[in-house]
Amino acid sequence: MSTAPALTYAQTHRNRFVAELIDFIRFPTVSAQPEHSNDLQRCAAWLAQHLQSIGLEYVKVIPTPRHPVVYAEWCHAPAAPTVLIYGHYDVQPPDPLHEWRSPAFEPTVRGNDLYGRGASDDKGQLFTHVKALESYLQTTGKLPVNIKCLFEGEEEIGSPNLPSFLERYRDVLDAEVAVLSDMRILAPDRPALTYALRGALSLELEVRGSGQDLHSGTFGGAVHNPLQALCEIIASLHDDTGRVAIPGFYDRVRRWSDEEQAHMARSGPSDAQILRDARAEQDWGDRCYTLYERTTTRPALTLNGIIGGYRGPGVKAVIPASAMAKLNVRLVPDQDPRDIEQLFRQHIARITPVTVHSTIQTHLFAKPALVDRRHPAMRAAAAAYRNGFGATPGFLRSGGTIPVVNLLHEMFRIPTVLMGFALPDDRMHAPNEKFHLPNYYNGIATSIWFLAEVAARLRSRTRFGRSY
Amino acid sequence: MSTAPALTYAQTHRNRFVAELIDFIRFPTVSAQPEHSNDLQRCAAWLAQHLQSIGLEYVKVIPTPRHPVVYAEWCHAPAAPTVLIYGHYDVQPPDPLHEWRSPAFEPTVRGNDLYGRGASDDKGQLFTHVKALESYLQTTGKLPVNIKCLFEGEEEIGSPNLPSFLERYRDVLDAEVAVLSDMRILAPDRPALTYALRGALSLELEVRGSGQDLHSGTFGGAVHNPLQALCEIIASLHDDTGRVAIPGFYDRVRRWSDEEQAHMARSGPSDAQILRDARAEQDWGDRCYTLYERTTTRPALTLNGIIGGYRGPGVKAVIPASAMAKLNVRLVPDQDPRDIEQLFRQHIARITPVTVHSTIQTHLFAKPALVDRRHPAMRAAAAAYRNGFGATPGFLRSGGTIPVVNLLHEMFRIPTVLMGFALPDDRMHAPNEKFHLPNYYNGIATSIWFLAEVAARLRSRTRFGRSY
Repeated sequence: MSTAPALTYAQTHRNRFVAELIDFIRFPTVSAQPEHSNDLQRCAAWLAQHLQSIGLEYVKVIPTPRHPVVYAEWCHAPAAPTVLIYGHYDVQPPDPLHEWRSPAFEPTVRGNDLYGRGASDDKGQLFTHVKALESYLQTTGKLPVNIKCLFEGEEEIGSPNLPSFLERYRDVLDAEVAVLSDMRILAPDRPALTYALRGALSLELEVRGSGQDLHSGTFGGAVHNPLQALCEIIASLHDDTGRVAIPGFYDRVRRWSDEEQAHMARSGPSDAQILRDARAEQDWGDRCYTLYERTTTRPALTLNGIIGGYRGPGVKAVIPASAMAKLNVRLVPDQDPRDIEQLFRQHIARITPVTVHSTIQTHLFAKPALVDRRHPAMRAAAAAYRNGFGATPGFLRSGGTIPVVNLLHEMFRIPTVLMGFALPDDRMHAPNEKFHLPNYYNGIATSIWFLAEVAARLRSRTRFGRSY
Repeated sequence: MSTAPALTYAQTHRNRFVAELIDFIRFPTVSAQPEHSNDLQRCAAWLAQHLQSIGLEYVKVIPTPRHPVVYAEWCHAPAAPTVLIYGHYDVQPPDPLHEWRSPAFEPTVRGNDLYGRGASDDKGQLFTHVKALESYLQTTGKLPVNIKCLFEGEEEIGSPNLPSFLERYRDVLDAEVAVLSDMRILAPDRPALTYALRGALSLELEVRGSGQDLHSGTFGGAVHNPLQALCEIIASLHDDTGRVAIPGFYDRVRRWSDEEQAHMARSGPSDAQILRDARAEQDWGDRCYTLYERTTTRPALTLNGIIGGYRGPGVKAVIPASAMAKLNVRLVPDQDPRDIEQLFRQHIARITPVTVHSTIQTHLFAKPALVDRRHPAMRAAAAAYRNGFGATPGFLRSGGTIPVVNLLHEMFRIPTVLMGFALPDDRMHAPNEKFHLPNYYNGIATSIWFLAEVAARLRSRTRFGRSY
């Protein structure tokens, strides 16, 4: 099928595509915060209506115990393979709010960038595929492959209901390959395919002391301050070299072949580049590894927040009754989240001083994921990038986590093509998140090409007769 | 002058006295929080009007750069000494709000206790003296001594404007003795006079890393997390024995005589009592000292709060750009707050890792204070307690800080009688703060007796002819 009509259509309708994306970002779909539940419902309904309007079929908003999944499909290409397009319409909390130059949910174009929470993670990247589908359907009336769209609302909280959802709709969702765009490339002219993701484990560690807040004058010096004890525990979780000090933590970390290490050294960002992206002056961590390795093939334990004591203006002379830390562990092959959780629990139990009590809650489990770089779908994606961005993509590991990738692999034994359109400075998860509009346009073209390339390179194994 | 009419009046009007105290507590006079400035203004006006109504004179609400002082006097006892009554109508922040059984600013009587923020610290204790004055003035029409009332609205933020206020009104405020009630006794039947207070130094320590919040997946393991670095710094401020690890911190801590140590061992609360008061299972800190010593004659560094990273529900995978700790140092003779601030600044500069930046802000300075236990005003107070509470008071040190005590000593060379009416479990600074109503009634009686005893035991040196 020719890509020309779709590409022309996409080019002609750029302004409307941006306006529609702005409408999409305007929904404050913060999945972590219960007060936004209704916003997620409204956004799901809006998205479903939009998918219907561009010509997709069987469009449904399917409830889960928390936030709904939006499903749509187009399956009229009997000889062609089936592509599952995954994306998420939920976003990270926008705080700290005062650091946004324009409000998080009032999307604003400045220069070539569209600013707003979710602009790149993941509404903008999700929409590249939606607009590619529209460009085919509104010109030729059909698609080069069969398509199933699965857009969830719980990715930023670790996709708690996705495993049971996939299990329940296993027959409906089966496909030859999945594609998702929720990651970064190296630069506007240096596209990249992600072939590895870290897993994740999110924990809350609470330390309790006395049954009550205490006056720090009256009792300061005589009882262990739970907030101080929490800091002491946190400080002891890394050794002086920046390695995680939990016994057994590194036992199952895979050692990569010389070939893979050489590939990473060749294709990955330099230390200087990663520091520039982070706007950091100094690196930190295990000096035996490059920063690219420290953030991809090495696990990391990070502290995402502390809640404890007085946070208002001025002074409150209090020893708080309790304090809590939010922690996140990024896991690599062959670490298992459940094992690491157990090691963490045992270690905290061992090091908690007798003067306080600690408890741990787990919020998120996701296994690390790997995709075979030589799979035909990856070659299809590389060809698509060459057409869409005018450059051959590199192969990158990402330090982030997208639970669906490992789930699809374990359930359907299919690869997920991780086709990034975000830039390193797009500030995903931070204030002033943005999406680079040229990447939006090139991303749409790349998605148009990708579907055509998949049709040319993969054969169908499902639904219309398995041929493998 | 007979105390009988005043004592009878006080007993007869108990219910009204409680109702008026409830009105007083209802003002949310949180001095630390700018949004309550107007509430402090309204409360000051209410208090001034109340003082006027009971028969005090020259009642004034005197502005300061922040919250006003309420002044009133009655000076028609030419031969008698002058007593300066100090109190504060501002209160600590009420949070965490959800831990209050009844709202902080909806004062509620349950059993023999009146619950509300400020019930004991300091509105209830301040009011014992106001009601004692009323009881005299509304029966005999006069007082046994000259009285000057100084009620400030900035005690809980370290009395920043009090030094210049005292300097400015030096001539007006001069007196033979000051009295204030803002501390605890041992039990309802074990009154106590406080003769020592710790000083205080409040600091904010901020640690900054990268210029922006970072995605903890993308960058976790490669850059130093400022929140983690803050925890590491905090953890290093104490050694394993609970001693403050800042070099030079203890250099000027006074060693007390054997006699004083013996007095403390005899009169102070036991370790078990202090743990019971704190509802703590375990003690903590320097084992060379009793808990009473650790909280009174030994300095302490406490962590009052940490602000850093995500504090909402669920997960936010962020490395925050910065983190801040609120710290409070309690100082003892002969430590000087400015010296300790310098030692703290030097130490933090030395231990801050090169991967982050730290800055320090100082909020509060107050020197430790000591009162001579043998001063005639202390004997007057002891006699008053015997009549008001039916028990001889012990002499106690307090771990808390009341800046005015040292200021009055340095400015006027007068002692401040620290006459406590609060109980150890009154939860000053914590949720469910209360005032024990029998202590309110006994406190009023004690104040009535105190003024009579001062008239009998002290001679005037000021205003009406110095006689020393």
